[in-house]
Amino acid sequence: MSSPLSLTILGCHSASPKANAHPTSQVLELRGHIFLIDCGEGTQVRLRKSKVKFSRIKHIFISHLHGDHIFGLVGLISTFGMMKRTEKLHVYGPKGIKELILTQLKITASFTTYPIEFIELSNDESEVVFEDEKVRVSTIPLEHRIYANGYLFQEVNPPRKLNLPLLEDLGVDKVYYGKLQKGSDVEHENKLIKSDDVCFVESPKSYAFCSDTVYRPQIVPLIKDVFLLYHEATFLETEADLCQKTKHSTALQAATIANAANAKHLILGHFSARYNDLTMFVSEAKQVFENVELAETLKRFYFE
Amino acid sequence: MSSPLSLTILGCHSASPKANAHPTSQVLELRGHIFLIDCGEGTQVRLRKSKVKFSRIKHIFISHLHGDHIFGLVGLISTFGMMKRTEKLHVYGPKGIKELILTQLKITASFTTYPIEFIELSNDESEVVFEDEKVRVSTIPLEHRIYANGYLFQEVNPPRKLNLPLLEDLGVDKVYYGKLQKGSDVEHENKLIKSDDVCFVESPKSYAFCSDTVYRPQIVPLIKDVFLLYHEATFLETEADLCQKTKHSTALQAATIANAANAKHLILGHFSARYNDLTMFVSEAKQVFENVELAETLKRFYFE
Repeated sequence: MSSPLSLTILGCHSASPKANAHPTSQVLELRGHIFLIDCGEGTQVRLRKSKVKFSRIKHIFISHLHGDHIFGLVGLISTFGMMKRTEKLHVYGPKGIKELILTQLKITASFTTYPIEFIELSNDESEVVFEDEKVRVSTIPLEHRIYANGYLFQEVNPPRKLNLPLLEDLGVDKVYYGKLQKGSDVEHENKLIKSDDVCFVESPKSYAFCSDTVYRPQIVPLIKDVFLLYHEATFLETEADLCQKTKHSTALQAATIANAANAKHLILGHFSARYNDLTMFVSEAKQVFENVELAETLKRFYFE
Repeated sequence: MSSPLSLTILGCHSASPKANAHPTSQVLELRGHIFLIDCGEGTQVRLRKSKVKFSRIKHIFISHLHGDHIFGLVGLISTFGMMKRTEKLHVYGPKGIKELILTQLKITASFTTYPIEFIELSNDESEVVFEDEKVRVSTIPLEHRIYANGYLFQEVNPPRKLNLPLLEDLGVDKVYYGKLQKGSDVEHENKLIKSDDVCFVESPKSYAFCSDTVYRPQIVPLIKDVFLLYHEATFLETEADLCQKTKHSTALQAATIANAANAKHLILGHFSARYNDLTMFVSEAKQVFENVELAETLKRFYFE
């Protein structure tokens, strides 16, 4: 694998407040980026607990404008201001997010010390919303009670890695390693060592965040071969009727998407408050997809 | 004393988020009323932890529109809707609170199932904002960086209580107790027992909530002889210069107000995040007012 990917869950429960169930928010770390995804109420306190440095957050992606995914954003934005942040913040979310935040900042006299760029979304087709030399982020159109997108984070240009056992076999001096990794060929004991022969590039990592949504097989081509899929599983199959009504998914449906997309790993979240025991979500999902885990507040999933 | 009064602290820290420091919110219970005062982010989760029944909250009083006193309100209002509340909610707060909440409810498609009445305040003089046969609530104009009010909750018509030792001495049959308590005189062994002779009324309880504010002796006449005073003490005297700048008070200033008002009890809160050890707040306040305690998240202060 190329670069490490980590996902820290700040909240993974649906909207009804319980003493120890927090609404959706998570932090993705990929190629040096810290991306915040959704921002339910109380996110900033759990960010503090997670030890993620506030100043490293430059991009915030909001799936949809239901309160359990957005009510913590204005508090975080205000706190950035109290911390005298100067660096620009980029906020991606459905059309309306700018008015939602700016109205609150104005009425609460929470003037920010830094610029905010709102990237408002209204497209029903997938689109690239962020791209640099390391990561590309595109939307995954979902189907919920209001306009909603998931996000696909894809590593691009994964770094070349050295085939260390081969280099040792060839007896190449370590002083050449840097050059070889960067793509230059070198001469060693009168033999040309080609960079491409001693370096390799593993498949790039990717993460798909899909919440909230009804079962939607149309997303499968967009997330084909994804490394890690987070898919909501608000209900179990016993409550499948509620999924259609509230536009949510069951654990089995989430796993069916993971299986069809040939994902490597699946994490389930957005559990309804009606379930005290979540182990059934795993067993239901495992009927069609083995490599599944449950999201858990302040749990960090780390993949080398 | 007449009726019990209890104050449950849901949060008592200033705006900067820390892992275990929550912004202002508290629940006052007086004569069967449950009043919510201020509603910083995450209030609904701490309400759950406090075991206060959401449905018993009918009146919410907001001191001012800074985020650490208001950002939790829209989430609570949305949750009331998810719980299918039907009873009217009364929200008291500075002008602008209605637009703040309604804009969010509209954009987040959080339709409420119940009516909300916003009582918007802009008066610089104290005014009565709520009154029934048991409790009167009036504003306490404060001085902060934006328009702010404290609130004075006063018990009215405290219940008549029976002088039980006297009734036993007189040998009055218990069947007459109800009548006597309600104010009727009764005949007992050919003697007239006057209700007023065997009943008494203790001094009514009252609670003054004063946060956020710079030191403001003008409030003393408004809260004269108050039973319980909660006064902000964001800083210690060593940071008195910050009080003027940020329009906050020191522990000594809060205690000076309590002493001048002849309060029975003082609770300090709204502590700045800069202090890890809060014991200095008590010792500083005790220089001028002995009966002082510190607010603490989820602590319940109970007074018979």
